[in-house]
Amino acid sequence: MILTVTLNTALDLTYGVPELVPHASHRVSEMSERPGGKGLNVARVLSALGHRTVVTGFAGGATGAVLRELLAGLSPQEPADPGGGLDAPQAPEPGTAPAPTAPAPVTDALVTVAGNTRRTIAVVDRATGDTTQLNEPGPLVTADEWAALLGRYEELLAGADAVALCGSLPPGIHVGAYAELVRSARTAGVPVLLDTSGEPLRRGIAARPDLIKPNADELAQLTGSREPMRATRDARRRGAHGVIASLGPDGMLAVTPDGIWQAAPPARVPGNPTGAGDSAVAGLLSGLVEGLSWPDRLRRAVALSTATVLSPTAGDFDRAAYEELLPRVGIEEHAPAAR
Amino acid sequence: MILTVTLNTALDLTYGVPELVPHASHRVSEMSERPGGKGLNVARVLSALGHRTVVTGFAGGATGAVLRELLAGLSPQEPADPGGGLDAPQAPEPGTAPAPTAPAPVTDALVTVAGNTRRTIAVVDRATGDTTQLNEPGPLVTADEWAALLGRYEELLAGADAVALCGSLPPGIHVGAYAELVRSARTAGVPVLLDTSGEPLRRGIAARPDLIKPNADELAQLTGSREPMRATRDARRRGAHGVIASLGPDGMLAVTPDGIWQAAPPARVPGNPTGAGDSAVAGLLSGLVEGLSWPDRLRRAVALSTATVLSPTAGDFDRAAYEELLPRVGIEEHAPAAR
Repeated sequence: MILTVTLNTALDLTYGVPELVPHASHRVSEMSERPGGKGLNVARVLSALGHRTVVTGFAGGATGAVLRELLAGLSPQEPADPGGGLDAPQAPEPGTAPAPTAPAPVTDALVTVAGNTRRTIAVVDRATGDTTQLNEPGPLVTADEWAALLGRYEELLAGADAVALCGSLPPGIHVGAYAELVRSARTAGVPVLLDTSGEPLRRGIAARPDLIKPNADELAQLTGSREPMRATRDARRRGAHGVIASLGPDGMLAVTPDGIWQAAPPARVPGNPTGAGDSAVAGLLSGLVEGLSWPDRLRRAVALSTATVLSPTAGDFDRAAYEELLPRVGIEEHAPAAR
Repeated sequence: MILTVTLNTALDLTYGVPELVPHASHRVSEMSERPGGKGLNVARVLSALGHRTVVTGFAGGATGAVLRELLAGLSPQEPADPGGGLDAPQAPEPGTAPAPTAPAPVTDALVTVAGNTRRTIAVVDRATGDTTQLNEPGPLVTADEWAALLGRYEELLAGADAVALCGSLPPGIHVGAYAELVRSARTAGVPVLLDTSGEPLRRGIAARPDLIKPNADELAQLTGSREPMRATRDARRRGAHGVIASLGPDGMLAVTPDGIWQAAPPARVPGNPTGAGDSAVAGLLSGLVEGLSWPDRLRRAVALSTATVLSPTAGDFDRAAYEELLPRVGIEEHAPAAR
């Protein structure tokens, strides 16, 4: 199974309004709510790809209860393979095969906290399609609750094929928290991907995660450079074994111990980039667990991420688009001299 | 006791942001949540004035559960007068006496519905103090749930000294719902105040409520006129026995069977007008139940409403300001010829 950690889970609300006018009153014409936080989004995509996933992190209060109820609803009622899961499905044609289509269960292993899980609100302006985001800070997590999470995490690592550490830290959690979780994963021999930003990313990298997946802003904040190759290599020198830099609509740049690749979608696509990064993480991790080559992992990550931008529902991916895009992702290997 | 009816209760969230920028992402720096919907706001002020209040209407789902928990927290742990309540306290000096200061209990008599109670979000821009409002539509109420509300309402009317019918209708409730509730109150001989807008107000007025409390926009929508005296008299001709028109910072205009009065605060005050109308309703109803004269009821309504604008917390009133303002509200009686 794949483990995802979301320390600051969220109930994601999406409000459609005809037009957002500051200082006016708006009747919300459409709304949806779903379990959120980056690690939960990654788990949802992994589940759709047929990978059994366990989610941990914190949830609490009335909002946490709603989140867990919605999370329980994500899992298929009758798993396609209740006996053993689908952790390493056989790809019929290496490289261009989509992951299996039967969704796999997402197991709730969240640690209950006394505080109330945060809400995030995406206000979608139906006139322009633009989104205004309001994020609550999250519950104050106590030292005892953090200790409980560490215990739960160690137990779960024992059965994990890979782990993703995702998103922001809630109030009360020390800035080196991800570094601590990276070290535990490495001690347990579980490949670990870190997807966060700012100081938690900086500290986490120093603990030598297998992978990080920063976007251009996160890379610039970390390294001071907006030149992709320079910034990605700098990030790798800071401790990450592999750095997969998201180049937004231009795809991804991967600087790894095995080589350097650039992967690009066949064309720029219009749509909502919300969740595209989380889909990319799911693509990278599922490819790692399935033993795919770097180019094939990147193909999957770019196709999933592009299919997420194309989906009418923010954060979901369009499966038909994904399958159509997968063989069309362009991969360019940089010459060893460029390394 | 005073009964308030809130068919579309709400969990009111207030988010403070440094500055609201459309299409940007915002970290909410301060937040609060409290039980809302106009009738619940009226009940909170009545409670602070020492009047036992019962609230009915609809609540459901996870948001409804949070609302009811917060509502339970509003009531004083040890009521000042657990034996009999404080329905008709003696005013030491008629006209300028503030209501008693010991808060009275607010009793939850809400009808549980299957749908989820709505949230409203007030985004307060800390740079300007301006508020952007986002209101969910509310749960779809079924015919059976409406029938249950009617039964509960009839029972509660038997013990009520006055009733306020407040706010918007949730989806599924017929537009003549308030007219139906006004007629029941009149049949039961309980004075009824209707505070709503649009077609539900138009229909409700035709059922001849004792009082309505429209603001300038609601009056204009009802009568087509923005001239206060003309619009207020027109509203009265449509069926309301008394019309108390809110003139915003200029106070109130009361056209009643007993005379016409204009009441004005001593000065315009800066602040947040959210909830000022609900405080005015509480002032009018408490004054009615205490047997105050029209000028004294208007003094109380204007002082409470002005003290609500002055309060740092939206919807609460500043008690010291209220007591200071009360004797300073100006009352002007219009000559009988003007009637």
